[in-house]
Amino acid sequence: MKITTKTANFDTPLYLESGRLLETYEIAYETYGQINSDKSNIIIITHALSGSAHAAGQYEGDRKAGYWDSLIGDGKAVDTQKYFVIATNNIGSCFGSTGPMSKMSNDEPYRFKFPVLTISDIVKAQKNLLTSLGIDHVKAIIGGSMGGMQALCYAIEYPDFADMIIPLATTAYTRPWAIAFNKVTIEAIRNDPDFKDGYYESADIKENGLNGLAVGRIAGHISYLSKDSMDDKFGRRYVEQDGLYELFGRFEVERYLEYNGYNFPHNFDPLSYLYIVKTINIFNAARGSDKLEDAIKKIKSKLHLISFSGDMLFFPQEMEEIYDVMQKVGNGDNCTYEMIDSDYGHDAFLVEVNKFEDKITNMLEGKYE
Amino acid sequence: MKITTKTANFDTPLYLESGRLLETYEIAYETYGQINSDKSNIIIITHALSGSAHAAGQYEGDRKAGYWDSLIGDGKAVDTQKYFVIATNNIGSCFGSTGPMSKMSNDEPYRFKFPVLTISDIVKAQKNLLTSLGIDHVKAIIGGSMGGMQALCYAIEYPDFADMIIPLATTAYTRPWAIAFNKVTIEAIRNDPDFKDGYYESADIKENGLNGLAVGRIAGHISYLSKDSMDDKFGRRYVEQDGLYELFGRFEVERYLEYNGYNFPHNFDPLSYLYIVKTINIFNAARGSDKLEDAIKKIKSKLHLISFSGDMLFFPQEMEEIYDVMQKVGNGDNCTYEMIDSDYGHDAFLVEVNKFEDKITNMLEGKYE
Repeated sequence: MKITTKTANFDTPLYLESGRLLETYEIAYETYGQINSDKSNIIIITHALSGSAHAAGQYEGDRKAGYWDSLIGDGKAVDTQKYFVIATNNIGSCFGSTGPMSKMSNDEPYRFKFPVLTISDIVKAQKNLLTSLGIDHVKAIIGGSMGGMQALCYAIEYPDFADMIIPLATTAYTRPWAIAFNKVTIEAIRNDPDFKDGYYESADIKENGLNGLAVGRIAGHISYLSKDSMDDKFGRRYVEQDGLYELFGRFEVERYLEYNGYNFPHNFDPLSYLYIVKTINIFNAARGSDKLEDAIKKIKSKLHLISFSGDMLFFPQEMEEIYDVMQKVGNGDNCTYEMIDSDYGHDAFLVEVNKFEDKITNMLEGKYE
Repeated sequence: MKITTKTANFDTPLYLESGRLLETYEIAYETYGQINSDKSNIIIITHALSGSAHAAGQYEGDRKAGYWDSLIGDGKAVDTQKYFVIATNNIGSCFGSTGPMSKMSNDEPYRFKFPVLTISDIVKAQKNLLTSLGIDHVKAIIGGSMGGMQALCYAIEYPDFADMIIPLATTAYTRPWAIAFNKVTIEAIRNDPDFKDGYYESADIKENGLNGLAVGRIAGHISYLSKDSMDDKFGRRYVEQDGLYELFGRFEVERYLEYNGYNFPHNFDPLSYLYIVKTINIFNAARGSDKLEDAIKKIKSKLHLISFSGDMLFFPQEMEEIYDVMQKVGNGDNCTYEMIDSDYGHDAFLVEVNKFEDKITNMLEGKYE
């Protein structure tokens, strides 16, 4: 299939949880498959920190497919021969939706004038896009990590909107362990003189990268992997041309982290990263309710929770807690929880799709209890 | 007791594993308690990454005691009324022993001319100090983390030297997970313009700190703590005067990491940090042997291994592996392994001494099997 990214423009203000607003905003999105006549085959995909609207398929001439291409496509678990799939780029991100480097009405980029967004704000904007497309109900919402936060947010704030919610590798509220990893990134970016206290030129960063964001991303990669996946992937292998007793001689794991860390800023805006990390840090599904139970009690969609045993960012217990609260508030029949056995770490939701794709197929077909 | 740090000078070259040498070197050390007539009450304490010779007691006018003061002192588990305790500062470190900012014969600091050291080199230098003090056998060697690596190294390379070896929270070889955390620090330091590619003035760093080392130390703190200890210590508490929707508003865990991260470089030399991290990264008790079994087989001392269930830097399985190899090579009677139940994380060996001090007492009295 030919993949194109579309952009929707909104000129009615988006009122935000903080009390601030976005006067106008844009949302980039992609769709895969065909909508059916009674609009009963719609699936929303919500993305993680560094994701985009490009969840599946390949752009013409591009080598890499969308981030969840192993899950979404013709004949795959999220089967685009059956389902009409919509993937958006979150507002606050830097892949076509309005974010901190977008221009204000005076033609200057927002930079620090951009408002801090919450998961609720992102979902509200997404929902406006869906309304504009004539969609007021969907079959399922599927998302991992920060995408799972959005899926949970839909379940709590729009209880009648989706038949089914499938959050993976996520949490009901971000804990200090994850906030600490994000702190490395925040400090590394702010200390980088090329960040220019936020007044950099995007073209310079795209061209030259940004070491501070690279260092933060290296810390991020630790939390996306696990002790075991690193043992498997790298062991104690040493870079062949480096000397063991050279101060800056490297293990293979170091080369991997360098490569991924230093490439990242060429493709990701640092202010956007700071804003997204903030959104993740302050995510709390219980906000607006007295306690998590009160929030979870609102859920009417079928909730299928999937965690990964080796997740070192959002630990399986965090998803089990959601399941336990579902039971506690009498919503247990409406909920399944499955921990996928995996050593990979947090990124298993992207990398080990083969371990849970059958479950997703069954969930979508209503055959999973 | 009045605590003083002494310095021993050596003018016979120290030949290093790398093939290089230190022409002359100094070792800072402290002693606590009195040596007995047959020299049978000597205990060596080996320190971790940021440690020093100051393991116990308080300097006159100082507010803080030595890093393991809860373990070592009159009437404590390492009872200085019974035992004569020696703690040295590792070569390569920056608290009085020869390190990268020490002066070469031309009166210039070594900086990158300093050789990369291994744990074996550090132990060899320590052992020279002990010989110079007339000590050719000790009762016990106790150390945690990088100090545990030294303890293991003594056990393998000097099998007749100690009656007993007590390594805590350590590993037989550093794995990619720990190397990855160290990578954050290495890159953060190197990218900091105030590091001046290693040609900084020490006085400037002491005065102004070094943001790169601070960022690295923040990553380090994640690995010293654990998900659970962070939940307990900080939860989702937010800094009172910061706004939830301010981009740089902070959770309490962030304030803690900032405080500890940014203070650290005022007291620790960045080149020293890079060299020590390298020493840790390349530690492998099996080096020089065909395999770990061959190294472990050499051990004659009683080996008491202590791990901590919540250690997220050197995981309990890593110490269990040493125990298993001891069994496998027929050295099982010579070895005990105990995992201390703890949520604290790696730093439990420093912070939760109350959880294992009785065991140390019994080990030293030969009553622990």
